[in-house]
Amino acid sequence: MTGAVLYGVGVGPGDPELLTLRARRVLHEVPVVAAIASPGRPSRALACVRGHLPAGAEARVFEIPMDTRAAAEAAYRAMAEALGRELDAGRAVAVLCEGDPLFYGSFIYLQRRLAPRHPVRVVPGVSAVAAAGAALVRPLACQDQTLAVLPAGAGEARLRGALEAFDTVVVLKAGRERQAIARLIRACGRAGEASYCEELGGDGERLVHDLDHLPPGPGPYFSLFLIARGCP
Amino acid sequence: MTGAVLYGVGVGPGDPELLTLRARRVLHEVPVVAAIASPGRPSRALACVRGHLPAGAEARVFEIPMDTRAAAEAAYRAMAEALGRELDAGRAVAVLCEGDPLFYGSFIYLQRRLAPRHPVRVVPGVSAVAAAGAALVRPLACQDQTLAVLPAGAGEARLRGALEAFDTVVVLKAGRERQAIARLIRACGRAGEASYCEELGGDGERLVHDLDHLPPGPGPYFSLFLIARGCP
Repeated sequence: MTGAVLYGVGVGPGDPELLTLRARRVLHEVPVVAAIASPGRPSRALACVRGHLPAGAEARVFEIPMDTRAAAEAAYRAMAEALGRELDAGRAVAVLCEGDPLFYGSFIYLQRRLAPRHPVRVVPGVSAVAAAGAALVRPLACQDQTLAVLPAGAGEARLRGALEAFDTVVVLKAGRERQAIARLIRACGRAGEASYCEELGGDGERLVHDLDHLPPGPGPYFSLFLIARGCP
Repeated sequence: MTGAVLYGVGVGPGDPELLTLRARRVLHEVPVVAAIASPGRPSRALACVRGHLPAGAEARVFEIPMDTRAAAEAAYRAMAEALGRELDAGRAVAVLCEGDPLFYGSFIYLQRRLAPRHPVRVVPGVSAVAAAGAALVRPLACQDQTLAVLPAGAGEARLRGALEAFDTVVVLKAGRERQAIARLIRACGRAGEASYCEELGGDGERLVHDLDHLPPGPGPYFSLFLIARGCP
């Protein structure tokens, strides 16, 4: 293990004010800040925290193509190698992560490559689930209630199973499938408990409190359904 | 609706540095800060943020007995009435909430009483789930994996169903039942994927990476099991 630490730093889902005090401290302490972006696009996590970086600080932005798993894996490997060289040289690295680093975050792919040789620390962040409940002012769960989180890609059988068995269900990355998911929510008799939101905390934030007002067609990647029975 | 706002302010689960910038701003803006405590004990959420309150600020601490549901409901009703009088007088109120206000939080019982007459806003916080993943450096979920959260009180059938169907399972408030839950995790063949932690971010923090090292007997209320398949 080398002495320089790899940090995964959760920055929350879109709103720069959801940065934690610890995240801000780490960003001021490390010599290297890294961020991930889709090819040809700005890094959302970096845009979120830019105002909180020390004056003159530069962030290294790595492009990760998401078209195929193999292309993404190759890009994560190259990124891990580049960050590994910084760590080997004794420079601590903070990787900016939207939401929480270990909750569906790209940091997982870096951490598992670098953890065998370098110390890893994680600064947890506000998740999209908590931010959705807050934006909608809808309780997520209370007392002995149960909560399930599934990405839309988990498939209809698992989504249906969760809608039948859990008090609260959150369907992440729901945009492309949002009409199919809305139909499934209705088929499970839970339309009256469902809300939808996208681009939480960002300029394009949209909150839909009633499925009947869901816009037609597909939505963006950062979107979710919250189906919650409410507190008894 | 009166103009004064009721805020639910998530302060994260134990570590004062997990306060968000927005939470700290709200605590400096409102004239009334309120917190909840068990009878005869200090408020954990207040202890967590005391260093971030404006100099000389006083917090109103309300004791909520948790012995019976009826006693708790009566105390929440009295607290909501007291806070309602502040709001009626035009004074905004921030209620401190460990973790996230709407994720198994007492704020739910205040919000539902006061929301019909007063505007409510929620500052989301870092949940115990995210803090556990970070403390253990264990990925919570990635890609199309699914995650279930259940309190120990959800009962054996629902816990077993989640352990059989979900990639990741988090069992909250697990202390009193921790031996029975460990047995269930073993019976479901997931002992090798299970970790346990308690008092996250506090002085009594304890992390157990291997079920074979689980201390005997019951544990504290703020404790959880994280059972995670890991990222494929």
